[in-house]
Amino acid sequence: MDQTRRREKLDHLFHPRSLALIGATRSVTKWGFIVLARIINDGYAGEIYPVNPKEKSILGLPAYASVLDIPEPVDLAVITTPAPAVPEVMEQCGRKGVPAAVVITSGFSETGVEGAALEQRVSEIARAHGIVMVGPNSMGIYSAAAQLTCLMAPVMPRPGHVACIAQSGNVGTHFLFRGYLRGLGFRKFVSSGNEGGLDFVDYLDYFGADPEITSIIAYLEGLDPGNRFLEVAKRVTREKPIVVLKGGRSAAGAQAAASHTGALAGSTGLYTGLFRQTGVIQAETNKEVVELARALETQSLPQGRRVGILTRGGGWGVITADACVEAGLTLTELAPETIARLDRLLPPFWSRGNPVDLVAVLSSQVYLDCLRILLADPGVDAVLALGANVEAQADNIMQALGRIEKVPAEEMERMKAKSRKEGQAFVDGIVGLIQTGGKPILMAGRWTASREWDTRLQMLAEPEEAARVLAKMVDYAEYLRR
Amino acid sequence: MDQTRRREKLDHLFHPRSLALIGATRSVTKWGFIVLARIINDGYAGEIYPVNPKEKSILGLPAYASVLDIPEPVDLAVITTPAPAVPEVMEQCGRKGVPAAVVITSGFSETGVEGAALEQRVSEIARAHGIVMVGPNSMGIYSAAAQLTCLMAPVMPRPGHVACIAQSGNVGTHFLFRGYLRGLGFRKFVSSGNEGGLDFVDYLDYFGADPEITSIIAYLEGLDPGNRFLEVAKRVTREKPIVVLKGGRSAAGAQAAASHTGALAGSTGLYTGLFRQTGVIQAETNKEVVELARALETQSLPQGRRVGILTRGGGWGVITADACVEAGLTLTELAPETIARLDRLLPPFWSRGNPVDLVAVLSSQVYLDCLRILLADPGVDAVLALGANVEAQADNIMQALGRIEKVPAEEMERMKAKSRKEGQAFVDGIVGLIQTGGKPILMAGRWTASREWDTRLQMLAEPEEAARVLAKMVDYAEYLRR
Repeated sequence: MDQTRRREKLDHLFHPRSLALIGATRSVTKWGFIVLARIINDGYAGEIYPVNPKEKSILGLPAYASVLDIPEPVDLAVITTPAPAVPEVMEQCGRKGVPAAVVITSGFSETGVEGAALEQRVSEIARAHGIVMVGPNSMGIYSAAAQLTCLMAPVMPRPGHVACIAQSGNVGTHFLFRGYLRGLGFRKFVSSGNEGGLDFVDYLDYFGADPEITSIIAYLEGLDPGNRFLEVAKRVTREKPIVVLKGGRSAAGAQAAASHTGALAGSTGLYTGLFRQTGVIQAETNKEVVELARALETQSLPQGRRVGILTRGGGWGVITADACVEAGLTLTELAPETIARLDRLLPPFWSRGNPVDLVAVLSSQVYLDCLRILLADPGVDAVLALGANVEAQADNIMQALGRIEKVPAEEMERMKAKSRKEGQAFVDGIVGLIQTGGKPILMAGRWTASREWDTRLQMLAEPEEAARVLAKMVDYAEYLRR
Repeated sequence: MDQTRRREKLDHLFHPRSLALIGATRSVTKWGFIVLARIINDGYAGEIYPVNPKEKSILGLPAYASVLDIPEPVDLAVITTPAPAVPEVMEQCGRKGVPAAVVITSGFSETGVEGAALEQRVSEIARAHGIVMVGPNSMGIYSAAAQLTCLMAPVMPRPGHVACIAQSGNVGTHFLFRGYLRGLGFRKFVSSGNEGGLDFVDYLDYFGADPEITSIIAYLEGLDPGNRFLEVAKRVTREKPIVVLKGGRSAAGAQAAASHTGALAGSTGLYTGLFRQTGVIQAETNKEVVELARALETQSLPQGRRVGILTRGGGWGVITADACVEAGLTLTELAPETIARLDRLLPPFWSRGNPVDLVAVLSSQVYLDCLRILLADPGVDAVLALGANVEAQADNIMQALGRIEKVPAEEMERMKAKSRKEGQAFVDGIVGLIQTGGKPILMAGRWTASREWDTRLQMLAEPEEAARVLAKMVDYAEYLRR
């Protein structure tokens, strides 16, 4: 199948007008029920045809004995029947003219030699009929545009513009879950399973060409020999960032990967070299994948690696300076003009250098002003801002006061409402600077008064994490400038 | 002051029968109010004497014009008056015979040359009168036995057996806050401030000798020349672990530290060498400090670095294997006996190696049995267990089912209660293995169904974090065996 043709077929996969759930069941603990229920429940608007020879109807929809009995065309077959039945099912899909299939059923190459033979049969049938196939042993797909949540795991993706390719369903759905909590929205998702049909690079190529996708994240264990990763990734990273968590970096990890997906995980050096050549951003942890994607979605790319640090506590400034240096960033020396401007706002004994320690100043207006001044310094490529949780702190102080029963309740409510309003203005102010400042602002701190604020600010718990995210953004920006 | 005498005086600091809050005020935004309110509110049982020449009473307690006007003996003076007044206040404390003081007031050496001169005067007065002094520029102290929460920050420490020394009040109180969330209890806490009187090593010595303290955590920026760290730390680590986060590891961080506490942060190599020689565990992040302390409080020390991994998803096994190797651990090869025992519990296509992938098995009983088998393998020094959140997953699946409105409400409630009960038994089972297995079990995963369970299991979000914590426990255990 050539590239254009494959992309067209993949459109049927992610934008199906109709789908058949082959292996649908009324048994609530089986995937044939859970996946079907999720598809219905999460709002898929196309036609849904449950297929089960023993049932008349399932979850209120008429059931069909086989895909061949469905009177209308079927764009997508989702297969959950037991493994031995899958070749026959795939054959029927071929005869029906179904262009795309997701095989959720497990018990194929991941279980040994017999399973591998069965998988090969299924793959050959799909190929012979020109069916693009996800899996087998996939945990499903997601498509925001189609409102299609064809997933085993009970996770509700947040719609957005990131695509995800996962060579582990558990890790991939974890990305979706974490993204949900952190305000990262997804356009398309695929758990690629054993990759008996479509493989990692096919998805990369397809997501790369999709104008609605602004970045791609992936969990990768291994690539087949002779794949087109180098060529495809090189092209895609020019358009949008690719963030990869590589499983099997160590020998022990590679051995575990061989047993998991049968992937030839290759040596660390091989993949790291491949990523470096293609501008792919390699994340170190699964958490970092999501945080990086979030930062790349919302922030400007830094023009260099010189960081300005804003802190509310000397110790945190020290920790953050260490974290920046250890991540490969540098601390900028502030311009005399910047110091002079900050002098006008801060107590005479402020650090007068970078990190900028606000000392005991609690006003969120001063915080914003200092942030603006720091951003304006020509030597600052990015700001790492700590302790932007004034209102949360105010809330806590008030709570502590409240316990003493000296402050009247109405007064307390008034103070709380005021602090809440100031907090909202503060968050809006920072988000405004992120959107218009042309330089990234990474935040780290304990918490704000609301999860919504945390999400809008992409507040990270640890300065070390923020420094690593920033450093990888710098690396990518440098790659693009080369 | 000799060591024995200093320790006696420190007892007055952390176990005062009475205290004077010098600088007490009715003004709710000032530290003289906030700190006093916290001391009263959090249950300190000794006598409290507010000192303020302009007030008759504060927060319902009679106020005194000066410490000299208090008719009874005063064990501890907590000072929040403006900096220029502190020398006089300290002089009066000396005349009153107060043995210990906490100077919360800032505006001393951290602000420049003038402040440094003022600090020296205060220190000299304290020394002349034999007063042990915390600070100046301290954020306060905490003592569980005295129920004394003499802290600026609105954080409520959890009582327990860890001591904390912080050369940054913000970082130190963050340890308390994080400890509260993670089930880590504290015996004594000190924010050492500018260390004009007592210094880091004095506290280390004192906490080292305290039989109620089982481990010590610290944020350290620098030590004075000629300090006794080497001798004291060497002695203390034989009795209890010391976990240190060193601020100022990089040149930029050291410069920031110099501006923060004036500490001579020294070169990275110097401190790392010092820690290695003395068996001090160096944490890499502030989060790791608390997680390490928690693990050291509750877990056995590992006898070696060979890890067994238990996972519920192949991808997570790969990620964890990588994380272990990168943290300096090794993956054990399972004994044939162990594989044979696991064979009896798991589907025929399980990985039959380490990581032990439970494949699709969801039963918590099987999970516990596999964990027990893995722990019993003579080649396993520690287990890293993932995906122990069955009941949370069951809850989620039920929620998803519930939305479809096919499952009757009573049936749903019954299923939930059952899942809850199974969850409780599961957590009890794991905690039992932790307590009696003689080997550490580190857990990582998304979440359990309750924060209480997370806390009891010390569930870490990321396998990478669990691997690093375990590796540092191994290093400490190896040091002790040397």
